[in-house]
Amino acid sequence: MTFCEELREEASDIWDTWHEHPFVKGIGDGTLDKEKFQYWLRQDYVYLIDYARVFAFAAGKANELKVMQKFAELLDGVLNTEMQLHRSYAAKFGISDEELEGVEKSPTCQAYTDFLVRTASVGTLPEIIAALVPCFWGFLEIGERLAETGDTSENNPYRDWIEMYSSDEFEDLSEWSKELMNQMARDASESERERLKEVFVTSSRLELKFWDMSYEMEDWE
Amino acid sequence: MTFCEELREEASDIWDTWHEHPFVKGIGDGTLDKEKFQYWLRQDYVYLIDYARVFAFAAGKANELKVMQKFAELLDGVLNTEMQLHRSYAAKFGISDEELEGVEKSPTCQAYTDFLVRTASVGTLPEIIAALVPCFWGFLEIGERLAETGDTSENNPYRDWIEMYSSDEFEDLSEWSKELMNQMARDASESERERLKEVFVTSSRLELKFWDMSYEMEDWE
Amino acid sequence: MTFCEELREEASDIWDTWHEHPFVKGIGDGTLDKEKFQYWLRQDYVYLIDYARVFAFAAGKANELKVMQKFAELLDGVLNTEMQLHRSYAAKFGISDEELEGVEKSPTCQAYTDFLVRTASVGTLPEIIAALVPCFWGFLEIGERLAETGDTSENNPYRDWIEMYSSDEFEDLSEWSKELMNQMARDASESERERLKEVFVTSSRLELKFWDMSYEMEDWE
Amino acid sequence: MTFCEELREEASDIWDTWHEHPFVKGIGDGTLDKEKFQYWLRQDYVYLIDYARVFAFAAGKANELKVMQKFAELLDGVLNTEMQLHRSYAAKFGISDEELEGVEKSPTCQAYTDFLVRTASVGTLPEIIAALVPCFWGFLEIGERLAETGDTSENNPYRDWIEMYSSDEFEDLSEWSKELMNQMARDASESERERLKEVFVTSSRLELKFWDMSYEMEDWE
Repeated sequence: MTFCEELREEASDIWDTWHEHPFVKGIGDGTLDKEKFQYWLRQDYVYLIDYARVFAFAAGKANELKVMQKFAELLDGVLNTEMQLHRSYAAKFGISDEELEGVEKSPTCQAYTDFLVRTASVGTLPEIIAALVPCFWGFLEIGERLAETGDTSENNPYRDWIEMYSSDEFEDLSEWSKELMNQMARDASESERERLKEVFVTSSRLELKFWDMSYEMEDWE
Repeated sequence: MTFCEELREEASDIWDTWHEHPFVKGIGDGTLDKEKFQYWLRQDYVYLIDYARVFAFAAGKANELKVMQKFAELLDGVLNTEMQLHRSYAAKFGISDEELEGVEKSPTCQAYTDFLVRTASVGTLPEIIAALVPCFWGFLEIGERLAETGDTSENNPYRDWIEMYSSDEFEDLSEWSKELMNQMARDASESERERLKEVFVTSSRLELKFWDMSYEMEDWE
Repeated sequence: MTFCEELREEASDIWDTWHEHPFVKGIGDGTLDKEKFQYWLRQDYVYLIDYARVFAFAAGKANELKVMQKFAELLDGVLNTEMQLHRSYAAKFGISDEELEGVEKSPTCQAYTDFLVRTASVGTLPEIIAALVPCFWGFLEIGERLAETGDTSENNPYRDWIEMYSSDEFEDLSEWSKELMNQMARDASESERERLKEVFVTSSRLELKFWDMSYEMEDWE
Repeated sequence: MTFCEELREEASDIWDTWHEHPFVKGIGDGTLDKEKFQYWLRQDYVYLIDYARVFAFAAGKANELKVMQKFAELLDGVLNTEMQLHRSYAAKFGISDEELEGVEKSPTCQAYTDFLVRTASVGTLPEIIAALVPCFWGFLEIGERLAETGDTSENNPYRDWIEMYSSDEFEDLSEWSKELMNQMARDASESERERLKEVFVTSSRLELKFWDMSYEMEDWE
């Protein structure tokens, strides 16, 4: 069993709950309230900025040049390409650039990004990877399941979303992160692997809370 | 108006909500469920460890020797004195050291400490102070109000708590942090002061959520 | 007088010494020992890796999205494009990729990169910029002076070097960093501006020591 | 062979050179120029401030409470006790507090402290310990050898120095750091142990340069 398989098993209940989540199922069959999806788009936009910071700190800390290079590429990709795609996609759902610029993080978005950025800034590189894998692999697993079981016809207003997270590019990213995690775990002590599991589980839980937050359109009041 | 007065005004609604919170009022009149208080003690214990990290990063980043020295003293005080007091105090409420060592952070405790440690690790010293002031000043304000309006007789099982947070030592700490904040704000640009306000408000909101969490005995399920 | 002009004046003697340095003059007239230049190429290669880390931490810390984006672009550019150019250029001077991979930092390269990375990791964004400006602007000033006064014929084995550091692209980079510095200085207090000057002077001094190191082919013995 | 013994062997030549250094021997037999010792006292004072930062970052990063506590104690000890002792000691050699406050780091002091603080801020806890062990253990070894072979009569103006670095307290500190290093090395992979050796050797080299710097009364010109 690879270390990622161990991680996946450790967080199995949480990941199962994602797949059963009304937000995720609503994307799959196209019945999700547009308003809830717009809420997700806005929060995901501010999430992306801190997600980019995680790549930045990872690049700043990595010992291996190859790993630095990959994180540099990811960082540049998120900030200089994907955020523009995100803005275009949000525009299709009636959200303007100005609106995106003015988004305030919701409590759960704040919690999740603070966890990621704290881990990136204070933690070791293996811990950073353990925090990131659920973002990559988790979205891929959701994307792939929805691509199989969901409505991918033109009737589904969220079909592009499903397509993106089940794409080959996204799979490559997820695979790269898993291989890096497995490689790093081979060099880790037992106590370090325990910590990595905790980090993975915390990210997995915060992913779940992010779906809750979006479905309930959480705010600070 | 000092900068701290501006901050206090900015977060006025949130701070008012603290004072009206059933957890805080229950400490004041002694009616709070013991179980809820035990929950708070456990979470506060793990909170303290990360709170200490904030002092550590502040000491590591401060330019002025005097500020480094104060944070070094606070850090040593929390880890080598206060945590022991906390353990003794928790023991009076039937919580053993072993139980404290095994506490898992609740979602809100995780969120609040991640915000503090992220700010400490990534942010500037003024931002770190802005994140800390609500912890110092807020608890003092609560302590002082309860000392005036609450039940401070021996009938109140929480009278020691009220005494601690309305003590002269705690007031000195709060005053020190406010003076440091005011001094740093004098050197800050308008946009920096805006950021400091945001940090202060976020800490204030997370303080409120910490009371909610304790009252509801929140867990990850 | 802009803040950058103030900085330039503060470090005027140091910058003058660069221009008179035998290493720099030897590039200008083509008389520099090939062996000394090879030494510089090897040390500059390992320098670049840490230089990239500075961009990474800057991207991780910047508040403005525009600034994050620029540092992300620079980071990706250095690691995924310029290092390859550097390897090709080094190959022309008989240095293989394997040799580059195995370079050990000399004392001065260690000192300079540790200063930059420490500043990037512990300091504020304005401090990071103050540490970087001498690398950008200083090399541009050297490149431009040599383009005017040096030998830019095919007889000079270092003409490509002169061309690179006097190019429009390099000028744009230098201008961008100066504008960012000036903008940040406008928001800085007097004491903060003093710190920025110290950082700028330290980087300028370490640039000078880097020329000394290369001319003397310094090692740890 | 413990990991610390391996480290000691790796840096054996460098440590031998310390013991033969004219600055160290001059302390041993009391013949060192007072002016050179004063120079050392001034640079050691500014060194201590950054040395304290290393303890601060270590406390901020440690996972184990016991390790955090020890670093908190060390940090408080250095900043709130030892620096005062240092000032008193410097006063005996005619250096005023004002003079100490105004010291500018020499190039080597800058290099060494930047290496330590960079490692503390960017590195892992084992790397931080590997950077610190030569400061603790190295001074103890020097102190103990001089206590055996040097002039410890009242004729030696530096006898207090020898006494301090051969004291039981200092030995305890050195032992603690070595035990922590050995413990961390047991959990480290082969490649991580290689990195720890590099860090240890770099600190050892910079210790040596610190003696050179003091003997030559180095400045930036």
